Amino acid sequence: MTRYDTVTLLTDYGLHDEFVGVVKSVIRDLAPHVHTVDLTHMIPAYDVRAGSLALARSIQYVAGGVVMAVVDPGVGTERRAVAIEVAGGAGVLVGPDNGLLAPAVAMAGGPGRIVELANVGYQLPAPGATFAGRDIFAPAAAHLCNGVDLAELGPALDPNSLLPGMIPITRDEEGELVCEVLWVDHYGNCQLNVAPEEIEVLGDRIKIRFGDVTRTAQRATNFGSLGTGTIGLVTDSYGMVAVCVDRGSAAAELGLDVGTAVMLSLPTTGDNPGSVTQLAFPTRRDA
Amino acid sequence: MTRYDTVTLLTDYGLHDEFVGVVKSVIRDLAPHVHTVDLTHMIPAYDVRAGSLALARSIQYVAGGVVMAVVDPGVGTERRAVAIEVAGGAGVLVGPDNGLLAPAVAMAGGPGRIVELANVGYQLPAPGATFAGRDIFAPAAAHLCNGVDLAELGPALDPNSLLPGMIPITRDEEGELVCEVLWVDHYGNCQLNVAPEEIEVLGDRIKIRFGDVTRTAQRATNFGSLGTGTIGLVTDSYGMVAVCVDRGSAAAELGLDVGTAVMLSLPTTGDNPGSVTQLAFPTRRDA
Amino acid sequence: MTRYDTVTLLTDYGLHDEFVGVVKSVIRDLAPHVHTVDLTHMIPAYDVRAGSLALARSIQYVAGGVVMAVVDPGVGTERRAVAIEVAGGAGVLVGPDNGLLAPAVAMAGGPGRIVELANVGYQLPAPGATFAGRDIFAPAAAHLCNGVDLAELGPALDPNSLLPGMIPITRDEEGELVCEVLWVDHYGNCQLNVAPEEIEVLGDRIKIRFGDVTRTAQRATNFGSLGTGTIGLVTDSYGMVAVCVDRGSAAAELGLDVGTAVMLSLPTTGDNPGSVTQLAFPTRRDA
Repeated sequence: MTRYDTVTLLTDYGLHDEFVGVVKSVIRDLAPHVHTVDLTHMIPAYDVRAGSLALARSIQYVAGGVVMAVVDPGVGTERRAVAIEVAGGAGVLVGPDNGLLAPAVAMAGGPGRIVELANVGYQLPAPGATFAGRDIFAPAAAHLCNGVDLAELGPALDPNSLLPGMIPITRDEEGELVCEVLWVDHYGNCQLNVAPEEIEVLGDRIKIRFGDVTRTAQRATNFGSLGTGTIGLVTDSYGMVAVCVDRGSAAAELGLDVGTAVMLSLPTTGDNPGSVTQLAFPTRRDA
Repeated sequence: MTRYDTVTLLTDYGLHDEFVGVVKSVIRDLAPHVHTVDLTHMIPAYDVRAGSLALARSIQYVAGGVVMAVVDPGVGTERRAVAIEVAGGAGVLVGPDNGLLAPAVAMAGGPGRIVELANVGYQLPAPGATFAGRDIFAPAAAHLCNGVDLAELGPALDPNSLLPGMIPITRDEEGELVCEVLWVDHYGNCQLNVAPEEIEVLGDRIKIRFGDVTRTAQRATNFGSLGTGTIGLVTDSYGMVAVCVDRGSAAAELGLDVGTAVMLSLPTTGDNPGSVTQLAFPTRRDA
Repeated sequence: MTRYDTVTLLTDYGLHDEFVGVVKSVIRDLAPHVHTVDLTHMIPAYDVRAGSLALARSIQYVAGGVVMAVVDPGVGTERRAVAIEVAGGAGVLVGPDNGLLAPAVAMAGGPGRIVELANVGYQLPAPGATFAGRDIFAPAAAHLCNGVDLAELGPALDPNSLLPGMIPITRDEEGELVCEVLWVDHYGNCQLNVAPEEIEVLGDRIKIRFGDVTRTAQRATNFGSLGTGTIGLVTDSYGMVAVCVDRGSAAAELGLDVGTAVMLSLPTTGDNPGSVTQLAFPTRRDA
């Protein structure tokens, strides 16, 4: 009578405390047949957007079953705890209704049934109201795996009542494509909110501008083909354009961070090549 | 003939090295039916008290089976390796006899049978004496899961011979409740060694004093209900009182750390409200 | 028809992103019977040598099955992806052909069959070429676990065509044994490329020299037997000699790091004892 046997987890709990372990213990206790998979627990604390992006990137690879995602600054307040069916019931996303789940739900084809996790009969008694992962979300995930129907966990919700996710879109401005760094990964690669098709017209050498810096970047399919000191615009493993350097951190070397505005455009004569840092003030040659 | 199928792990091994993975490999090799659950491996190095508190917080949620806990500055010396049955044999805690296990054993109802892990027939041959987790504790956990009886692992020990755990208690001093920060979690919430009942008489607005700072704190059940800049005294997810701020780190903003003394008392006229920092020296108005 | 049920993982992916979780999701999806074990994912980014050493240390403890190791600065370039059988087929190592696997393969008795992972029928379609762990290595590991024969994954390779690993060896130089720090662990212990047998002739008190420092170190079998401030040369848990101090970080206190040259020799009269720091410039007594 079990319905799912995988619970995939994403949180901002970090790994220093026992939070993740307690969540898994609750699942293990209630549904011993379940195998858990950690996407990551190191979403920056309270950063709902970063969590929603990581979940959206991962969702197409996640095994069928329950996804429990918790980045939840409003825990214990009136924000709702929800469960959302996707893919005709092949998966259920469980978490707070704060925009965290929305982009992944969209990537998975949109919501099916949605309920608010209001039935306390499927929750743990809570000594305090601040650990919904342990007391509400993990039990919900475990009970769903045990075959409990979604409808038993609480009243149905209107999909239009859910908080949407926020993913910034690019815009054209005076001949430049205005982009934004969505994600800086462990290696310092800076994923932009740009698909390769959007910059095809700009060719293989593209003018890149951010802060006071203007450089020329090279389109590439891997890091190793970039020369030392060259800025690459690499199609990353999720099919998005990322600012990269070979065997180094583009974020650290170029001073990019999540949210940095990055402008892409056709190169103009006189632009510095990618391997030379553009000075932000006039040089002697300019005088 | 298997007896347990879960081993729950807590160590100070960190995650940078392969220590945790080697421990799990040993368990996987000896008892392939076992599912492991990591509580945390990021207890500060050698910090037996921090490890014992994390284990005590978690133990009521841990699934039945073996708990292997290792924070072990005395590894390789004459300190004993032990296994302690709890809950009528529903669980066994395995680790060093240095106070690490004691609070969790007490939380689980006190010890049943106790043995010293002295039988080398259930240990791995060790190239060096510094990795008891791999060579002594993990094999003990695996063999227990395989149905080996506790008594086979070594001679019985007197419960009174075990090193006790050290958890500080509060005291009244000149009208103040003198508390201590037990734990600073990932979000910067500072758990005190105080149950909500102990401060009920102080009401909803409580004078809080630490270092040179005196403020008024607000009792609350969640973070979101705290105003910006307000210090909250929130009943945390373990039912203890924690010093918190909304969407920020109380530890960083207030300069609290594990072991900081915190004094709670009835507010007096003239105390600053929680949203204003109390100066530690006389102000002009005082002159 | 399954052939293996364990995949052991070692990468430099870190834990901040969802990379490890996506790899496990791919394995879970393709081979749901598989249990994964993480050795570590915190090999320093691109540090093939550090990864190869961690894998070589662990391999004798790893459960039978597939090992997937990825530290892969050349991802997406012409470097080959390979799978190497060891121990008569009891294990298969999967990863890039860049020296990462070589020391572990040697520790496991040398290579059996080797193939290049060139059969795209056993790979995921890749939106970009930079995540071979997800698109090439994890599917290969999962298919091997499902019973797919190694030969189906791609053409056989000559063992002599594999890139060798690089492990530095000691040398004698003017009466000193010139060693190198191979690994600094979580506790700050500094493993040298020296077996205990190599320094047996030097006795229990050994002159140790690095940078501008000359001290006397004490041979020991555990940390606890070292006095405060004493430098120990402890036979570590892998049977190698490590520079250690009791309940402290030898790396931090002595300024040692991976790659630091350390010279060991017989103590000479007038050497400072281990508990006093040798000044690097002449003292008054020298004048």
